[in-house]
Amino acid sequence: MNEFALIDRFFRRATHDPAVRIGVGDDAAVVAPAPGCELVFSVDMLVEGRHFLRDVDPATLGHKTLAVNLSDMAAMGATPRWALLAGALPDDDEHWLAGFARGFFALADRYDVALIGGDTTRGPRNLCATIVGEVPAGMAITRAGAAINDDIYVSGTLGDAALGLAVLQRRVALGAGNFPEGRVRLEMPEPRVALGLQLRGVASAAIDVSDGLTGDLQHILNASRVGAVIDLALIPRASAMEPLLAGAQREVVLQCLLAGGDDYELCFTAGPPARAAILAIARAAGVAITPIGRITAAPTLVVRDESGLPMPALPRAFDHFA
Amino acid sequence: MNEFALIDRFFRRATHDPAVRIGVGDDAAVVAPAPGCELVFSVDMLVEGRHFLRDVDPATLGHKTLAVNLSDMAAMGATPRWALLAGALPDDDEHWLAGFARGFFALADRYDVALIGGDTTRGPRNLCATIVGEVPAGMAITRAGAAINDDIYVSGTLGDAALGLAVLQRRVALGAGNFPEGRVRLEMPEPRVALGLQLRGVASAAIDVSDGLTGDLQHILNASRVGAVIDLALIPRASAMEPLLAGAQREVVLQCLLAGGDDYELCFTAGPPARAAILAIARAAGVAITPIGRITAAPTLVVRDESGLPMPALPRAFDHFA
Repeated sequence: MNEFALIDRFFRRATHDPAVRIGVGDDAAVVAPAPGCELVFSVDMLVEGRHFLRDVDPATLGHKTLAVNLSDMAAMGATPRWALLAGALPDDDEHWLAGFARGFFALADRYDVALIGGDTTRGPRNLCATIVGEVPAGMAITRAGAAINDDIYVSGTLGDAALGLAVLQRRVALGAGNFPEGRVRLEMPEPRVALGLQLRGVASAAIDVSDGLTGDLQHILNASRVGAVIDLALIPRASAMEPLLAGAQREVVLQCLLAGGDDYELCFTAGPPARAAILAIARAAGVAITPIGRITAAPTLVVRDESGLPMPALPRAFDHFA
Repeated sequence: MNEFALIDRFFRRATHDPAVRIGVGDDAAVVAPAPGCELVFSVDMLVEGRHFLRDVDPATLGHKTLAVNLSDMAAMGATPRWALLAGALPDDDEHWLAGFARGFFALADRYDVALIGGDTTRGPRNLCATIVGEVPAGMAITRAGAAINDDIYVSGTLGDAALGLAVLQRRVALGAGNFPEGRVRLEMPEPRVALGLQLRGVASAAIDVSDGLTGDLQHILNASRVGAVIDLALIPRASAMEPLLAGAQREVVLQCLLAGGDDYELCFTAGPPARAAILAIARAAGVAITPIGRITAAPTLVVRDESGLPMPALPRAFDHFA
């Protein structure tokens, strides 16, 4: 199969989006943005052996390649619209390509995202997706708007994906079961797009938790030039974590919860007057939203343990180059 | 150096572009498109060992990573505006990163392109750049507009980069010198952005010649549902090629000229009434533009050799998966 046949067969599909003037198959794609909107862009690169294992189900990888992009749109309060996908592949295995495309487009279709362009080459497996979203002018939620006394919230539960990976890698032993929900979170993360859209005009700052809560919250604090106090006991987590946090495996589970990465939940801030609105948004978006602390003037991040004492050291976030 | 320090040091720069509302450093970038414009997108992925050699000068690689993107904007008649850059790197070698950034930004600055986002990870070296351009609504030049009897033009000279590579790889022996201009074309291609902008409203179809003339012209023919006759003798080439085409190395040099790839020239079509306009555009853009043939109704691509006879077989374009 040549490169163009591969693209035609697996990645070129009709779109019903009238804004797409030219899609896959020219030198570049052309879209007509909606009047009054700003465009929102993000790119993510997933590398075999680092972000996924060689034997991962290609459909889950297709899902995740787009999901991590969509999560960035959610954090900005943007509507995801169009995607470009570049991939280096070691071969043209049709079974693999069909699976990848199935997973990618299943998620794209749920959010009405059209694939409008891409590039395909041979090489060590690497998937790079660029997402383009729209937001009414001036309404994007940034990391820079957190104000002193704002509440800090997170969606869903944290640490599940990291614990799932730790169980897979036998770094954590569970008393019963193997925490399959962690593996689902790891491989099929659910971007919080609907929540992000509802937070527009309500949240003062937001970030998606992809590298671990403390590291990502620190990005909000840096951009907003503030600090925070959060309570470990308040951080929402799967019930399977509770006994582990009280036992001999506490350190590795703390690492998962505070710095585990791959959560793709939203961490955001909002002033106290927004509390009722946020309760309503949680109900409407069908996702748990939990207050975990508060923004402070002192420019540090304090995590209080179950006794209310500041933890002396925080687990470090994963860093590709540290 | 951690990932964020690396981005801050090498890839985060102030931009004077007022359309960039949020640049590098948030979950996503936000830009305000100009009213009345459509947005044009392209992505290209460059893989070590395939698109460039491990020991390539990082500054030339930085240049080329963006140049191949800009060439797609040129082919659409779009003004390049903003770029996103994702990279997998085997290490955080500061000398390499500084060189790469220097080459990338030197070209970006020439075209007022702002780097607004990216992603950095560790892995086999792979650079993936996404370019966003603007074009007045409805004015993008596509591959689909070529009409019967249109003239076919190419800019500059073709085959230089491929011949440069063939000389480097000792597949071609030159009588004198080592064709350094070919290596420059290979490593530092010059995208025809100014030419592309002037062809808006004049060219009926265009493509950038990145995979070789015959293959890329065939894309125009397929999209426009037409054929073409072109003359080998008319295809503009470096003077160093002339003696080679008459000698024992004719086949490999024909391959360079017709299917060599990495030219980053424009191949475009325009009706006979546009001839005077195209002469003026060539002068204004400071680049040679050469008519090489004509669009036909018969849906085939015929290349006539120096005797005017159809070549029985055409060299095949490079294909990553053939």
